[in-house]
Parts: sequence; structure tokens; C-alpha cells
Amino acid sequence: MQGRAFWARLNTGQRNQYINAHRNVPPGLLARYHDAGIRNLSIFVHEDFLFLYLESDNYDAALAVLENDPIESEWQRLLGPMLQAGGYSELAELFHIA
Amino acid sequence: MQGRAFWARLNTGQRNQYINAHRNVPPGLLARYHDAGIRNLSIFVHEDFLFLYLESDNYDAALAVLENDPIESEWQRLLGPMLQAGGYSELAELFHIA
Repeated sequence: MQGRAFWARLNTGQRNQYINAHRNVPPGLLARYHDAGIRNLSIFVHEDFLFLYLESDNYDAALAVLENDPIESEWQRLLGPMLQAGGYSELAELFHIA
Repeated sequence: MQGRAFWARLNTGQRNQYINAHRNVPPGLLARYHDAGIRNLSIFVHEDFLFLYLESDNYDAALAVLENDPIESEWQRLLGPMLQAGGYSELAELFHIA
């Protein structure tokens, strides 16, 4: 199962809000992620930089499921304004051992 | 098994050298990583930013083994000068689902 990584930058002053939001994710969200085939999702922070790592059974299929999910859509509407324009962008993998 | 993440910045002009080095890791290095309990190690790149994600049976034990390993030490001596001062720093995890 290959991991994929993404990065984003927080808007000024939104760091604590972003962290606190993740302490109270919407009811049902984690079950949707699991049902979509996401097996590991970690977000890390350094100053205003965010780094997201995820593993999924099938990334494109997971994305397709979640794009049409009302709980995920509402969650992204909450988080989106905390991130600088463009939100998360994927990083290129340069090395991997499993 | 908790993942940990680290970031670093490449020195100007060292990006291709860093990528190419990882296409030719020293013989024996991956076996040492495996024996040290590292179960997943991925490095991602965006411009001059590096993000490293790893999972290990016991991170502190793995580090103690690798710090005294001559192959790993030689590898880090090769890579070190490609990174800006300080090398890799750990990121704080703000969210994790497994």
C-alpha cells in the first residue's frame, strides 16, 4: 500500500484553529474515511506548514467517494478558509522502502 | 505503529544530487534499516523542501542501532552537505487515524 504525501500552508493566525478543529472532527467522518479505504492518515505541523501522509486501498476511488460525501464536504468547507490559496498540494515521492 | 515525520531543506543546486543518491543507496543499507526495525520510510520532495515519513517498531531503539552503524554513518556523511544547516527536524503530529 503506497503512501502519498501533501503539503499546505496555514493562513496567518489560523494554526490553533486548525489544530483544535482536528480535536473535534465531525461525528461519522472517521467512519467515512475508513469506508472509503483510507488506512492511515496523519497530519504534521511545523510553524505554518502542514504535511499530510495517507495510505489507502485505492487513492482515486477514495477521493471519488469522499468528494460526494456531505460530511467530508462540510468538513472541508470549515478547513478550507484556514489554508492558503490552493489548499493541499501533492509532493513527489523520491524514495520509499517498506 | 506510529508514524513520525521530519522535514529538511536542500541546499541550492543539490536537489538532483539528493534524488540521484537515493537511486543508488549503499549496498546493505536497506537491510540495516530493516534489522533496526524500520518498517516504512518514504521521502517526498517539493522544490527545496524534503519531507520524510517513517514507521518503526521502536524509534529510539532504531536510532540507537543506526547511529553506530558504519554504512548508515557513511550514508549520512554523503547526504549531510546537501541539506541546509541542521538537517532533518521532526514535525509535530496534530492528527492521526489508523
